[in-house]
Amino acid sequence: MQEENFETNYLEDELELIPGLLEQKKFGEIKRILDDTNVADVAAYFEDEDEVSEKDLPVLYRLLGKEEAAEVFARLDSDTQSTLINILTDKELQQVLDDLFLDDTVDMIEEMPANVVARILRNTDAKTRYQINELLKYPDDSAGSMMTVEYVNIKKDMSVVEAISRVRKMAENSETINTIYVTENRKLIGICTIKELLIAENEDRIEDIMETNIITISTTDDQEDVAKMFNKYGFLAFPVVDKEERLVGIITVDDAMEVLQDENTEDITKMAAITSAEDTYFKTSTFSHAKNRIVWLLVLMLSSTLTGTIITKYEDAFAVVPLLVSFIPMLMDTGGNCGSQSSTLIIRGIALDEIEFGDIFKVIFKEFRVAILVGAVLAVVNGLRIYIMYDSMQMAIVVACSLVMTVIMAKLIGGVLPLLSKKMGLDPALMAAPLITTVVDTCSILIYFRIATEFFHIAS
Amino acid sequence: MQEENFETNYLEDELELIPGLLEQKKFGEIKRILDDTNVADVAAYFEDEDEVSEKDLPVLYRLLGKEEAAEVFARLDSDTQSTLINILTDKELQQVLDDLFLDDTVDMIEEMPANVVARILRNTDAKTRYQINELLKYPDDSAGSMMTVEYVNIKKDMSVVEAISRVRKMAENSETINTIYVTENRKLIGICTIKELLIAENEDRIEDIMETNIITISTTDDQEDVAKMFNKYGFLAFPVVDKEERLVGIITVDDAMEVLQDENTEDITKMAAITSAEDTYFKTSTFSHAKNRIVWLLVLMLSSTLTGTIITKYEDAFAVVPLLVSFIPMLMDTGGNCGSQSSTLIIRGIALDEIEFGDIFKVIFKEFRVAILVGAVLAVVNGLRIYIMYDSMQMAIVVACSLVMTVIMAKLIGGVLPLLSKKMGLDPALMAAPLITTVVDTCSILIYFRIATEFFHIAS
Repeated sequence: MQEENFETNYLEDELELIPGLLEQKKFGEIKRILDDTNVADVAAYFEDEDEVSEKDLPVLYRLLGKEEAAEVFARLDSDTQSTLINILTDKELQQVLDDLFLDDTVDMIEEMPANVVARILRNTDAKTRYQINELLKYPDDSAGSMMTVEYVNIKKDMSVVEAISRVRKMAENSETINTIYVTENRKLIGICTIKELLIAENEDRIEDIMETNIITISTTDDQEDVAKMFNKYGFLAFPVVDKEERLVGIITVDDAMEVLQDENTEDITKMAAITSAEDTYFKTSTFSHAKNRIVWLLVLMLSSTLTGTIITKYEDAFAVVPLLVSFIPMLMDTGGNCGSQSSTLIIRGIALDEIEFGDIFKVIFKEFRVAILVGAVLAVVNGLRIYIMYDSMQMAIVVACSLVMTVIMAKLIGGVLPLLSKKMGLDPALMAAPLITTVVDTCSILIYFRIATEFFHIAS
Repeated sequence: MQEENFETNYLEDELELIPGLLEQKKFGEIKRILDDTNVADVAAYFEDEDEVSEKDLPVLYRLLGKEEAAEVFARLDSDTQSTLINILTDKELQQVLDDLFLDDTVDMIEEMPANVVARILRNTDAKTRYQINELLKYPDDSAGSMMTVEYVNIKKDMSVVEAISRVRKMAENSETINTIYVTENRKLIGICTIKELLIAENEDRIEDIMETNIITISTTDDQEDVAKMFNKYGFLAFPVVDKEERLVGIITVDDAMEVLQDENTEDITKMAAITSAEDTYFKTSTFSHAKNRIVWLLVLMLSSTLTGTIITKYEDAFAVVPLLVSFIPMLMDTGGNCGSQSSTLIIRGIALDEIEFGDIFKVIFKEFRVAILVGAVLAVVNGLRIYIMYDSMQMAIVVACSLVMTVIMAKLIGGVLPLLSKKMGLDPALMAAPLITTVVDTCSILIYFRIATEFFHIAS
């Protein structure tokens, strides 16, 4: 991704003029509007099928300046990229591939069908093709697949003025010049920010100003951990090294932000019991939407039949006291809500590295105290309501006692289960929804009928 | 925040040596370890009360180098900052305040009790105090409160070599030099990245290389929108201007990442019906935890009594067919899960600007089709199960029909409600959990008993 392009302001009104100008074939005017619009906005405009038809897309794309074309291309979604590639001539495609940064090329290739990939590789030179193939070898979620190989490296015996001059020469083809890497026999021996370089005296030697305690990322690191490191250290780029500590690439902050956003979406959807989709809501087909949702719905549905079976066992109880049935939804809902409140806080804490398995007893103790407070308030409010509405002190006491116990049970389960799943190497967000709902539902019904049969002296 | 400091590698083992070294009073060795550790890790170590006692904190802090001290201080949480401020002498405090960037000072002041704030302001010079007061005037969630005033500005008639020399002079006291701002009478007339500056020829004039179509942020913009702009454009900093288009500060990407993380946490907790806390899980007191959770629990509890009341109305129905009660949990759970799946996807889509109110009919159509597919599968699976388990074709049909209708109803409500709340200026994430649960629960019970009484010819 380009990280330093303050091209233009977003003039939405101007983009809206384009269809009219196309009809009048006023291409010069369109070119001016596209030049004046930021590449991110041009890309968003091209992607919008309501705005730009497939027929007009190549016409508009060819009106872009050479550099702008590559930047817009890098930001398009894979559908639009693939439409464009099919239209471009080999020469035009070569031009785009030349101007793209390698990480963007690799991102694109990963999404394309085989025949398009073949055409892309045919149109890159041997060295680039080699680099692309190397990058494609890294697993999808690894640091290796996020990195780019276009960075500035210098030698430790250079003077500051020599280093600045090298940076100036290499800047154009580097994704970032914010950090400059000092290498020796391909090994990373030091780093130096552009700011440090510019602050130093002309005659200073790199060796003396470079930082040698370096935080590096390994090619095999998980991309989520990488994103967290950006958050923690506030750096703009991290060097990526292989097993022999050789510098193989860099990862920049913009790519980390994307990963962070994607991971957050994944966590959020998982907690709502949805297999997360790769695409946006509208780009995901109806069938995929259904598929992503049905698995957990089936699991949850069958597990809630367990609750139903338990209820059936107590048929005699509610034959004697039919009012008992009325409070089932309230108890189950409250239990479920309490459980998901706790599990959500713990899952988020785990994701942000604030809570780990070793804290499990601290969590239990905290949730227990919270549950006592919450349960007491809910029990009093509901007990009073039932006493007033149904004039039954007995019923009020049964429901109030069940509520307190349900809340405690739900909060403990909600607090402990995510930590246990993490410990067992399972994804806490994924396990939370189905397991907690099932366990909490079952337990709340058991608690309720146990207390009720005791209290009303009903044989079960 | 510092954004360009690759200080050291994280040597956790070394930090663990500190307590022993403290006992032996080997301060030189401790100083070396602290110097070799990245400031983010030192800050995390200082914050951990299990590691560093309140007694040792000032000792360790005073062993930090001058520059490192300010950077560590900026990264500490407000509790630890306030502990430190109470211990530091006026002279030490002045030193810290001198070295902090203004946005960090303001962030800190916002969290401190009044007497500490008074002491801080007493120890800053008049100009800084004025700037702090100006920054404090901006609302908490505004771009103004995120920005810093330490940036590099140049004039349009400078040559590239003059500009570079100015950047080198100003770098030390600027939060970032990645983007350089061209101003005239305090108005922002152009920008230029350090990369562009270094690529340009020495004799080029700034006027000719600067970008004049600038994307700016207004001091009153919402910080969530600001964070989204970083995501969209991939920039490292945005200029902030006032109503008269005068440059008043800049916002850097690290601050945007923090906002993004916080907003995500807020959305996630809201969806689980929790008022989000300012602090981490463990730093939030038991009482605050209970308070943050109780409001929605009460609302949800009372609303689910509505469902209970409806059930009571159908007492006669389940007196005749007691088995009816067994399927209540399953229907309510499935309805709730379907609704929250849809609302989660729509809320996330709204947060990422992928879905807007104008798409409401597209959403309805999509959710309807998904619901038909999902409902059919669930109905068949459950119908078969009931037929096999209870040998009752009638019951199987009643539950299957209720399921299909419940799923459709839940998915439409889950899809539409977030968009409606957005349209009415309400927070979709906040409205989702309570409203959708209540509406979906009520409707699913009504659908179920309506179908059942029809089918079993029970008068209600």
